Amino acid sequence: MNHLNTLRAAVGAPHVLTDADAQPYLTDWRERYSGRALAVVRPGSVEEVAAVVRACAGEGVPIVPQGGNTGLCGGATPDRSGRAIVLSLQRLKRIRSIDLDNDTMDVEAGCVLQAVQEAAREAGRLFPLSLAAEGSCTIGGNLATNAGGTQVLRYGTMRELTLGLEVVTAQGNIWHGLQGLRKDNTGYDLRDLYIGSEGTLGIITAATLKLYPLSIARCTALLALSSIGDAIAMLALARRGFDASLTGFELMAGDCLQQVVTHFPRQQLPFEGASAALPWYALLELSDSESEVHARERFESVLGKAIESGCVKDAVIAGSTAQSKALWHLRESIPLAEKETGKSIKHDVSIPVSHMATFVRDTNRALQQAFPGIRHVIFGHLGDGNLHYNVAPGGDWNEAALLAHQDAVFTLVHDNVHAAGGSISAEHGVGQLKRDALVRYKDPTALALMHSLKQALDPQGIMNPGKVLVAPVR
Amino acid sequence: MNHLNTLRAAVGAPHVLTDADAQPYLTDWRERYSGRALAVVRPGSVEEVAAVVRACAGEGVPIVPQGGNTGLCGGATPDRSGRAIVLSLQRLKRIRSIDLDNDTMDVEAGCVLQAVQEAAREAGRLFPLSLAAEGSCTIGGNLATNAGGTQVLRYGTMRELTLGLEVVTAQGNIWHGLQGLRKDNTGYDLRDLYIGSEGTLGIITAATLKLYPLSIARCTALLALSSIGDAIAMLALARRGFDASLTGFELMAGDCLQQVVTHFPRQQLPFEGASAALPWYALLELSDSESEVHARERFESVLGKAIESGCVKDAVIAGSTAQSKALWHLRESIPLAEKETGKSIKHDVSIPVSHMATFVRDTNRALQQAFPGIRHVIFGHLGDGNLHYNVAPGGDWNEAALLAHQDAVFTLVHDNVHAAGGSISAEHGVGQLKRDALVRYKDPTALALMHSLKQALDPQGIMNPGKVLVAPVR
Repeated sequence: MNHLNTLRAAVGAPHVLTDADAQPYLTDWRERYSGRALAVVRPGSVEEVAAVVRACAGEGVPIVPQGGNTGLCGGATPDRSGRAIVLSLQRLKRIRSIDLDNDTMDVEAGCVLQAVQEAAREAGRLFPLSLAAEGSCTIGGNLATNAGGTQVLRYGTMRELTLGLEVVTAQGNIWHGLQGLRKDNTGYDLRDLYIGSEGTLGIITAATLKLYPLSIARCTALLALSSIGDAIAMLALARRGFDASLTGFELMAGDCLQQVVTHFPRQQLPFEGASAALPWYALLELSDSESEVHARERFESVLGKAIESGCVKDAVIAGSTAQSKALWHLRESIPLAEKETGKSIKHDVSIPVSHMATFVRDTNRALQQAFPGIRHVIFGHLGDGNLHYNVAPGGDWNEAALLAHQDAVFTLVHDNVHAAGGSISAEHGVGQLKRDALVRYKDPTALALMHSLKQALDPQGIMNPGKVLVAPVR
Repeated sequence: MNHLNTLRAAVGAPHVLTDADAQPYLTDWRERYSGRALAVVRPGSVEEVAAVVRACAGEGVPIVPQGGNTGLCGGATPDRSGRAIVLSLQRLKRIRSIDLDNDTMDVEAGCVLQAVQEAAREAGRLFPLSLAAEGSCTIGGNLATNAGGTQVLRYGTMRELTLGLEVVTAQGNIWHGLQGLRKDNTGYDLRDLYIGSEGTLGIITAATLKLYPLSIARCTALLALSSIGDAIAMLALARRGFDASLTGFELMAGDCLQQVVTHFPRQQLPFEGASAALPWYALLELSDSESEVHARERFESVLGKAIESGCVKDAVIAGSTAQSKALWHLRESIPLAEKETGKSIKHDVSIPVSHMATFVRDTNRALQQAFPGIRHVIFGHLGDGNLHYNVAPGGDWNEAALLAHQDAVFTLVHDNVHAAGGSISAEHGVGQLKRDALVRYKDPTALALMHSLKQALDPQGIMNPGKVLVAPVR
């Protein structure tokens, strides 16, 4: 086939995969989405990416960019038509440079997040983005979805961690926008337009990232709480007392932790009696730039006030790195414990912190009315207003019965999120999963603007079609 | 005239200014740009803004949005054709709400920055944006130009301080995008596209802003330095030692401070002997969330190390709020002292910190070769890589002789900025002043993308024409 030969000429024949070699690229890692492709093409440089895009643009062949294939919304999986190519960025994995005086590094899109974290650490700096898939997700995917994770409270999402981009446009031109500048007001913010656009406007091939000082000491505590209102009061105390040293505030329903210790008996809840049976817990983390002693004194002083004020019922402070890891391990095991009890219906939402308590109360109540006995699996990054609000089998609702009503659950939860001024995708993006929901919830003017931008930058509609936006009728 | 009657119907006759009443809106505050207008229109609500835009779109009348009219690049001044209207946002000045639990506030575009700072402080919070014009510039102008100022090192520019926007599009539709969410990945980042677009894509009518805890204590010092290299070494020490508590690092050439104390004899340089004759000084500021005592100890510890390492030759720590203000006053008086010695040629540039020293050395040298004896007025926000690199009369070059060569100076300096990987507009924007220079320095692919975006969102070309982009030939 002529087109395949053009692609082989562009990237070298061994890097155009068809048949069995292509299979791992055609299904997402959760195995929720599966598709077909003309070929999987693995360019080795930005120039090769541009050549591939030009070849595809010339023939009207759709392109599905892919990084580590760890996305949660089907954004990197092709459709079933077999008309598109998957363009894998995995071979663009050089760390191009580190500038210590400027606290920046230039990295290619295919770098695995953990490799970037490690390169920064070896240079005596912190690259703060941290999330569950960090061992296999790539920087390009992190940029395409504006990834979040556990350090957003202090350092922001991928957007705030990025200064410059190199991008191949839908026409196959290269925008050389790598730059280590904290201020640049020379026109429209193309950088932030490509970040979070999930490969639908062009292909990010490299980025200039911000670096930060490594912290000297870290304190972690698990707090036992009576209500979300108390968690919010504690968050306010921590913000005031720790300011930018507050690096973690994770809220977890008591049920979630009970599931963890039930399914993973080697883990333990470090409370006893009444404190072990409270409805909410929070993981609090402080990162200090001075000393262990200073961190500890500051941490205990704020926690002391919190217990005195009554918003925290009980607290366990990690006395060692191992204990700190054990507390984080409880938090990180929640999704694994959730999996043990059957497939659940997941929502990655954000809500203004001030509306969080009523949102959870009202949504729990409405779900119980509609599906009596189902279980609520609620945890997330309270400091960012980001909840993972999941609904799991329970009562008369077994997995199959519940999943049969998945759309009704989505709509009930997302309607409440929308009414509370929230977002139906806080950190995972839209992809295929929430594309239709976007039409229901997005401000109509905003949606029309998005379509105008798509039409302007990708008039042929070849960049990751069917993701984020419903394709317009032509 | 029919069109004026439509506008009077939209906003009420007293708010459509013509003749003498319109004059203050037609010249920028530095009196560098002056134009004419069909009328100055002052809507009082977002609905009225939308009605005005629809009326103008219907007749193809250009619109020049204007806030406090304090811009430095002529972005808010109409051209001389008299075809456009000036749309002043000054009557949209409500602080709509403050959400303490969520640490956000909703404000209208016409709010004066200082009024927003004060409203936040009364609520026990900090809104950190701070710049020279804060008593008269508006939030809408701050958003349109992505304003920077003295607190960027810690809190970022206006872009990083903004969560949501309300915008009237070029078609007169309203995007209701006010939201207090720190995470929202539901599609293209329209917010950051409008921020910094200088009114050329639509009109920002309100914003949701982030609030921060007020600091408990602040330490300020003036440091005497031998070289920019030493200033960069000190910046690295301060970043490591203070982390996010580092809220100011302003670099100033010794000449600048000499000019200040010469022209304003009530101000004094707090050094004597050799320390008073060094080529560079830096203003260092730490903001602490714990206590006066803690702030002081931390500040002195890092400064002690800096003096020991030799990168700081001498330091004066402010012992009181009055002394701290006196040090900041030295810094803030530099532009005023500059004005006393005649008009200078100003450059608001950013450079990677690692290239700063060679940029200044090479550019100074090239300017002295071309214009022997001219004076360099160099100061700025070193922590952000942002220099105000100005060229003042000196030697045989009096004001008139120098200004006659303004374009040659611009080009020499900006060519060097570009070669050092920098930006020709760090925080002031493009407006009319740097519109043509953008064509010389902007990556051609980026410039083409900007034209595509302009065409997509404002196909009639009525939004602030002639600003940022050279109008395409039609």
